[in-house]
Amino acid sequence: MTRYGAQFGPDITFLGVPPCDLDHESTYSDADVVIVGAPFDGGTSHRPGTRFGPQAIRMADYLPHDGSRPSLALRTDGLKDLTVLDAGDVEMPPGDIVKALGVLEAAVEKVTRSGAIPVVLGGDHSIAFPDAKGVANVLGHGRVSMIHFDAHADTGDIEFGSLWGHGQPMRRLIESGALRGDRFLQVGLRGYWPGPETLDWMAERGMRSFEMTEIVQRGLTDVLIEASSIAVDECDGVFLSVDIDVCDPGHAPGTGTPEPGGLTARELLDSVRRICLELPVVGIDVVEVSPPYDSSDITAALANRVVLEALSAIARKRRDERDGTSWDPARPLLHGRPEAG
Amino acid sequence: MTRYGAQFGPDITFLGVPPCDLDHESTYSDADVVIVGAPFDGGTSHRPGTRFGPQAIRMADYLPHDGSRPSLALRTDGLKDLTVLDAGDVEMPPGDIVKALGVLEAAVEKVTRSGAIPVVLGGDHSIAFPDAKGVANVLGHGRVSMIHFDAHADTGDIEFGSLWGHGQPMRRLIESGALRGDRFLQVGLRGYWPGPETLDWMAERGMRSFEMTEIVQRGLTDVLIEASSIAVDECDGVFLSVDIDVCDPGHAPGTGTPEPGGLTARELLDSVRRICLELPVVGIDVVEVSPPYDSSDITAALANRVVLEALSAIARKRRDERDGTSWDPARPLLHGRPEAG
Amino acid sequence: MTRYGAQFGPDITFLGVPPCDLDHESTYSDADVVIVGAPFDGGTSHRPGTRFGPQAIRMADYLPHDGSRPSLALRTDGLKDLTVLDAGDVEMPPGDIVKALGVLEAAVEKVTRSGAIPVVLGGDHSIAFPDAKGVANVLGHGRVSMIHFDAHADTGDIEFGSLWGHGQPMRRLIESGALRGDRFLQVGLRGYWPGPETLDWMAERGMRSFEMTEIVQRGLTDVLIEASSIAVDECDGVFLSVDIDVCDPGHAPGTGTPEPGGLTARELLDSVRRICLELPVVGIDVVEVSPPYDSSDITAALANRVVLEALSAIARKRRDERDGTSWDPARPLLHGRPEAG
Amino acid sequence: MTRYGAQFGPDITFLGVPPCDLDHESTYSDADVVIVGAPFDGGTSHRPGTRFGPQAIRMADYLPHDGSRPSLALRTDGLKDLTVLDAGDVEMPPGDIVKALGVLEAAVEKVTRSGAIPVVLGGDHSIAFPDAKGVANVLGHGRVSMIHFDAHADTGDIEFGSLWGHGQPMRRLIESGALRGDRFLQVGLRGYWPGPETLDWMAERGMRSFEMTEIVQRGLTDVLIEASSIAVDECDGVFLSVDIDVCDPGHAPGTGTPEPGGLTARELLDSVRRICLELPVVGIDVVEVSPPYDSSDITAALANRVVLEALSAIARKRRDERDGTSWDPARPLLHGRPEAG
Amino acid sequence: MTRYGAQFGPDITFLGVPPCDLDHESTYSDADVVIVGAPFDGGTSHRPGTRFGPQAIRMADYLPHDGSRPSLALRTDGLKDLTVLDAGDVEMPPGDIVKALGVLEAAVEKVTRSGAIPVVLGGDHSIAFPDAKGVANVLGHGRVSMIHFDAHADTGDIEFGSLWGHGQPMRRLIESGALRGDRFLQVGLRGYWPGPETLDWMAERGMRSFEMTEIVQRGLTDVLIEASSIAVDECDGVFLSVDIDVCDPGHAPGTGTPEPGGLTARELLDSVRRICLELPVVGIDVVEVSPPYDSSDITAALANRVVLEALSAIARKRRDERDGTSWDPARPLLHGRPEAG
Amino acid sequence: MTRYGAQFGPDITFLGVPPCDLDHESTYSDADVVIVGAPFDGGTSHRPGTRFGPQAIRMADYLPHDGSRPSLALRTDGLKDLTVLDAGDVEMPPGDIVKALGVLEAAVEKVTRSGAIPVVLGGDHSIAFPDAKGVANVLGHGRVSMIHFDAHADTGDIEFGSLWGHGQPMRRLIESGALRGDRFLQVGLRGYWPGPETLDWMAERGMRSFEMTEIVQRGLTDVLIEASSIAVDECDGVFLSVDIDVCDPGHAPGTGTPEPGGLTARELLDSVRRICLELPVVGIDVVEVSPPYDSSDITAALANRVVLEALSAIARKRRDERDGTSWDPARPLLHGRPEAG
Repeated sequence: MTRYGAQFGPDITFLGVPPCDLDHESTYSDADVVIVGAPFDGGTSHRPGTRFGPQAIRMADYLPHDGSRPSLALRTDGLKDLTVLDAGDVEMPPGDIVKALGVLEAAVEKVTRSGAIPVVLGGDHSIAFPDAKGVANVLGHGRVSMIHFDAHADTGDIEFGSLWGHGQPMRRLIESGALRGDRFLQVGLRGYWPGPETLDWMAERGMRSFEMTEIVQRGLTDVLIEASSIAVDECDGVFLSVDIDVCDPGHAPGTGTPEPGGLTARELLDSVRRICLELPVVGIDVVEVSPPYDSSDITAALANRVVLEALSAIARKRRDERDGTSWDPARPLLHGRPEAG
Repeated sequence: MTRYGAQFGPDITFLGVPPCDLDHESTYSDADVVIVGAPFDGGTSHRPGTRFGPQAIRMADYLPHDGSRPSLALRTDGLKDLTVLDAGDVEMPPGDIVKALGVLEAAVEKVTRSGAIPVVLGGDHSIAFPDAKGVANVLGHGRVSMIHFDAHADTGDIEFGSLWGHGQPMRRLIESGALRGDRFLQVGLRGYWPGPETLDWMAERGMRSFEMTEIVQRGLTDVLIEASSIAVDECDGVFLSVDIDVCDPGHAPGTGTPEPGGLTARELLDSVRRICLELPVVGIDVVEVSPPYDSSDITAALANRVVLEALSAIARKRRDERDGTSWDPARPLLHGRPEAG
Repeated sequence: MTRYGAQFGPDITFLGVPPCDLDHESTYSDADVVIVGAPFDGGTSHRPGTRFGPQAIRMADYLPHDGSRPSLALRTDGLKDLTVLDAGDVEMPPGDIVKALGVLEAAVEKVTRSGAIPVVLGGDHSIAFPDAKGVANVLGHGRVSMIHFDAHADTGDIEFGSLWGHGQPMRRLIESGALRGDRFLQVGLRGYWPGPETLDWMAERGMRSFEMTEIVQRGLTDVLIEASSIAVDECDGVFLSVDIDVCDPGHAPGTGTPEPGGLTARELLDSVRRICLELPVVGIDVVEVSPPYDSSDITAALANRVVLEALSAIARKRRDERDGTSWDPARPLLHGRPEAG
Repeated sequence: MTRYGAQFGPDITFLGVPPCDLDHESTYSDADVVIVGAPFDGGTSHRPGTRFGPQAIRMADYLPHDGSRPSLALRTDGLKDLTVLDAGDVEMPPGDIVKALGVLEAAVEKVTRSGAIPVVLGGDHSIAFPDAKGVANVLGHGRVSMIHFDAHADTGDIEFGSLWGHGQPMRRLIESGALRGDRFLQVGLRGYWPGPETLDWMAERGMRSFEMTEIVQRGLTDVLIEASSIAVDECDGVFLSVDIDVCDPGHAPGTGTPEPGGLTARELLDSVRRICLELPVVGIDVVEVSPPYDSSDITAALANRVVLEALSAIARKRRDERDGTSWDPARPLLHGRPEAG
Repeated sequence: MTRYGAQFGPDITFLGVPPCDLDHESTYSDADVVIVGAPFDGGTSHRPGTRFGPQAIRMADYLPHDGSRPSLALRTDGLKDLTVLDAGDVEMPPGDIVKALGVLEAAVEKVTRSGAIPVVLGGDHSIAFPDAKGVANVLGHGRVSMIHFDAHADTGDIEFGSLWGHGQPMRRLIESGALRGDRFLQVGLRGYWPGPETLDWMAERGMRSFEMTEIVQRGLTDVLIEASSIAVDECDGVFLSVDIDVCDPGHAPGTGTPEPGGLTARELLDSVRRICLELPVVGIDVVEVSPPYDSSDITAALANRVVLEALSAIARKRRDERDGTSWDPARPLLHGRPEAG
Repeated sequence: MTRYGAQFGPDITFLGVPPCDLDHESTYSDADVVIVGAPFDGGTSHRPGTRFGPQAIRMADYLPHDGSRPSLALRTDGLKDLTVLDAGDVEMPPGDIVKALGVLEAAVEKVTRSGAIPVVLGGDHSIAFPDAKGVANVLGHGRVSMIHFDAHADTGDIEFGSLWGHGQPMRRLIESGALRGDRFLQVGLRGYWPGPETLDWMAERGMRSFEMTEIVQRGLTDVLIEASSIAVDECDGVFLSVDIDVCDPGHAPGTGTPEPGGLTARELLDSVRRICLELPVVGIDVVEVSPPYDSSDITAALANRVVLEALSAIARKRRDERDGTSWDPARPLLHGRPEAG
């Protein structure tokens, strides 16, 4: 196997799941999920470091790297009940964003074509373009909606003279036709960017963006219900893109463009769970974890748990669909387990 | 122009707004807001470092320093829709608190006399005395109420042998007659200071202090409504003093006297917005950001956003008053923008 | 006095309370509370450092170390209204967990026998075994219930070839007969540990474990009320064990096995207060503070306040019982204090 | 003036020297030295962050930013006795290295053409190509020698699929014909890179590379004398390129590829002084300062002093040449100053 | 293969060398060097964290983890010219030092018996006992001398009630008879430990300990020559034990008991090279790297280079012995390489 | 005893030496050395934090706080062979430098008058004025010389409008007549401060300042010999003032105004030893340790060892004078100890 492995550091897999090699389809043809590292921060407008995101997210746990994580909450093992493989990193030259994104798009497309769900570990948010487009290339342009957790809309046009960067992927996705603007749901926006011109562009495309004020006023659950209903209208699948900076900097300090006033870690995990339990998720990325700015790896751990929460929920959804069961969030942890006679 | 500039580091302005010089009134006579740096930690009883607060607050953003910040939530640009100038720092010798506070009081008074709102970047909380007194000197002693976000009452008497320090400014303000005790509203107090004697003093002056237990029990919104109604009773203006340690140390680690159990960053921003939208704010300070104790600058970023939230809300309030419009927190971000035909 | 003092660093006491010496009963025979340091991380499965926890918790405050802390919320001084003494550390060799835990058990037993409440500052969570067992040895096996705040159940069996470690104390306590499984209340569990086999074991023992999903769904207050009612059913006393990692890593980064999605600091403090106000608490430990992973000491400060909150509430409970009064969380801070005539 | 200013953060100049604008020649036509920021880390193979190098180097001092620094050692003021201007940053898109380096080369060429010495603040070492080539474009290809302080030879060929990166600039410079391989002096190499093939290439080009073993064995002074004599043989000017990682990580932790066993800070400063005092330096760059990995800004401070040492020595050299004086390193600091009569 | 792998984190090998499994001799029977991780800090008297030392040392490099490191200085590839395998970690329960050390001793003995040189990555210095004893068990008690770089003599008797800890291994080694006291060479001692009683014990055993004062006075080279000549007198092999705290804390901050006034990183690397080039080294350990106290991983990087320097020198020694060549430290890096005709 | 104790944190003594109380002479009348904490950073021109210096220096050791430190190098126990007491801190209000320095001067004078040597732990360097003047007030103005290790001359005139600060104490000392300018020896100066005017003032007073260039050129030993001979010419005692920033920032990052290119920790310790062994030292201060900027406490540890080195040498000097012995730096550590017969 000529697997590329890790661009930075040793060749490890996400919490010890088995490796696969994107150059050899047989190594992942039966996968449910393929994890892909995108160690790229060449699109970052401010603090870099997300190139070390994939490595940090793969490692950020205190339990053995044994490829198993039974979820207390969901009573599934997202790494065992699904076939989860890790393809290692895609080689992404930091100084050539166009080439780097192209290589990633091809990788994601391969995974999707195999029938597996790609889970891409960023890297900065510029990778959302190849991530979502790679999926849509297979499932059909316009057939995949986007639920996008972020402090920032990422719909900018040109920055530092370039069309490509971590502030622009969502505009590029819509402009390319891969995704429909009116099936683009954004959750957690706040702060002072972008300006009116870009907001007008977003409105014209029919985007639905939930700023934190609206979320606080209406409640997060209400907002997620609305977003979910739009996401599955005339679309076959949902791409979930999680920028870790949707959380408050207190919960996620290790990121490039921290914006005060965000979600708690608990709210993000619960939201990811709900979406992956209820909607037909066809692709995921978790981005903007910047280890050099992290504090005791808490941001990397959060991103690690976002991945686990998503995989656990997908596993649970499949089991519930197969068994005709359903999940009850209020059921006590030990309820239904054998008690001493 | 003989502008003093920055006491520490290069001479920069808050996110790139134009400079002015307090020694030349013509440079700020048409300002709506004048930012003043108070790089002073000589009143700090424990961890110092707030002398670098003004520099850190001015710089703590990942967007260009272009003097423009269009608020997503409020649909105004607090730096453009108002005339906001930055007077640089006031020279404050760290070892001579009496002199340092006197110079600051004179500076704030100048700003107020010009008709602008002073926004003072601290510095430790000892500066609240010159900040609020400087305003009251112009608007009238007893005519300005105080809304004070803080973990600590700051009504101590003598510390390390001195009447002046960051634990005492609120007592000094009331004793001086500049502010009325019964128009003094404190939000976020908690912990184990001050002791009964000081609390008695506070009660005697008719202060209204909302400890976190009461806030949790009643809800923050309810508390703010009560505070606001007191603040405008027989007073013409409100001074808003934000000690960043009102937030929980998880959200604001970079401060001198962190007290667990505080507000979230989101709650603070929403509170500041409400006050500046609804009340006649005549002066603001944001204090106790201590960069050497910060983690990836998240505390400085929070203070920066407190300032922006306040300015955005003031701008919005003025526009609404002029246009007869009103702000609706539940309105979606893109609502009302042009949609493609 | 041949007091052992501190295993690491200078011999200091918790915020300056008087010292006592466990080898001389007369030094603590009239104590209400005896603080004991357990500077041990030999049971830690991942990040060590909790050996410095006792020192850090004792020191983590910005107020003078004067043995007095009047609580704003509870209107008592937990350090003055009770007789609180600090016995220093128990000598615990890091490489000999069996010996180390044995010495601690003896120390806790001594304190309990004297009639005082032991408050043990960890140290990793392996110390919960000697802490709770030491109490139960005196009050009677099966007569003490446990309320256990933690992200982890700590009911594992064997780790790194050892029966003893910070993932196993709760199993050992139940197996030893010291505590009843069906009076074992766990609050805050989450994540991916333990696996089904251990959960079955827990269910068989009748444990009641509140995972975060249930807590979010039902509300923390509701959960605490249920836990409290179980805790006093056929038990004479409650042991309160607080693993600081029950809080979200944003609020408590300085710990060995941080698990995203936990309680806020505010929620923990309010929970501790409620339990100590309402239940017959007979022993407390606060564990898993790891200073080398902390950020500006905010985790140590939180643990310090957990202790203070508990002591303040115990003092208040005793006063209310004596005076026939009761505590009202909605009462304003300054209410009832003398006002100027 | 439409000066671009700073790519990241506020527009400041090196320790307060006056600004100039490369788009307007009149603003720098009389400069002796023009400082140019190259905030680029798109060529970095490992830890990024050097994009913040220019900002950090400009600010890293505790003295006022007043454009004056009288050297105790050299008795000149490198910022006053020369006309030193700061052109701000060149805009360098992080994801497009070819474009970024091209823009920088044009900027350096402009400065050289004006007769000033360009001092480029990096940024990663990929910028050495445009820095030295920009100078050689004006002074003549083959007429400029290179003295290169570094732990690494930077003569690699292709990395991450790219010809351009911080491990390759020296190869590109020689291949381009801008610099002669046999006038390329490297000081401080060590460690395990590059491999034999690249070393052969270097030997074929006649490079002279002083590895640390040779330096320790012979003494640094001896090595510098040899390097200096080669540098001026058939060359008209010397380009001095200082990669801060030539110093031991203990002295310069804030860098991307730290290699243990390097020079002390003192040795680097003394070497830079010697070279600038004795040789016709026509261009300088100081690279690889990565603030997110720094400790209390000591690496940025060292780079700041490398610039000051160079400018002080150039000023002293010009004065000595004009006045026929010479500098004596053993002369006491206060010698020759007026003594009280 | 049932390789245990890593006790903490993913199963990686030292810079990508092939793995082996100590439970299957065939996997390492042809090795020249076997690397063994000893992730143990249960013997640490103060700051823990060395349990993460093996992982950090294996990873601390910016070059690809490709199992190759051609030394510039020695012109060998220590990882390729020798057969170097990595056996992963030995499972060492943190709370049971006697058991932990026993398991490690067995592992080292296995490696030595196979004819390979064990290179043990610590862990705290308590592991020197099993490391050196494991070797001597095979080569003969009394036939192996020790060269020991350290700030501390590590010849204490009892600490925290235990005979075993990182302050005692050297005493235990001599008492056990495995090593002769009069072939025990210590380099770099300094500070205030141990006291006279222990020094008397050391003198009685004929130890030769070079305190920093003597080293500064005589020169390090002189000291190493004396030590080397003793080391090979009536001994067949030399064990090299490097406690990273022999270096000054400026060069190696990430350690448990930093003692100011030590060697530079350069001096340590040169010393290790000399010893491995000149003496029959039969075992090595590198200990006391504590990642939680490190700064930007510079201490881990230094330990990584100590290993590489040793392996490079051993490879060079074997080649020189085979080819009849010798190494000249003053030879220029590129000397002898093909030059263009 | 009404001992003031510690201004910040718990009341501890230097490594556990016995306490004394300056308000009660009997508690220190037989002391050889009295340690005094000066927790003051109100004179700091840049990074504050030295107020925590005394606490950090007292605690910075990994050995037990048992009041004993047998020096390996000097074969004395500086804490036991002398009577060393710790008076705790002097209360120094951070915002009132004139008052703060006055209180310290009185304290130092008391100690000197008792016959003990004052060792003052700073605090910023403004305290050198009361430290040396307090001694000279007793021993006679003009009768005490100064040996001053520092990167900075500290002879400035007015800063931030004040005569008093950490850049001015040496000027104030000479102007006051307490110390003679021509018995003022400065070692380690470097960088870009002060300017010519101040240098002229220094020259006029006959100061002898050794800049690093002269030190490198001549060798440190040579410089110390010259300084020592001046120091005892017509003076009865020597005051030793050690600013930790005399060391390179790599060795002492935790300081307010780090200046690259300084001494190594080893050089500083050797210099302090030499001076205290050879000269009649009558007072010492160690200043400018700023814990918030430190890295793993290495700067505090260095300051701690400077104190220990000084006390050990003073103890050795007294023993040698009493016994007619002398110290030989080249004597091996174990030489002269009993060997097994």
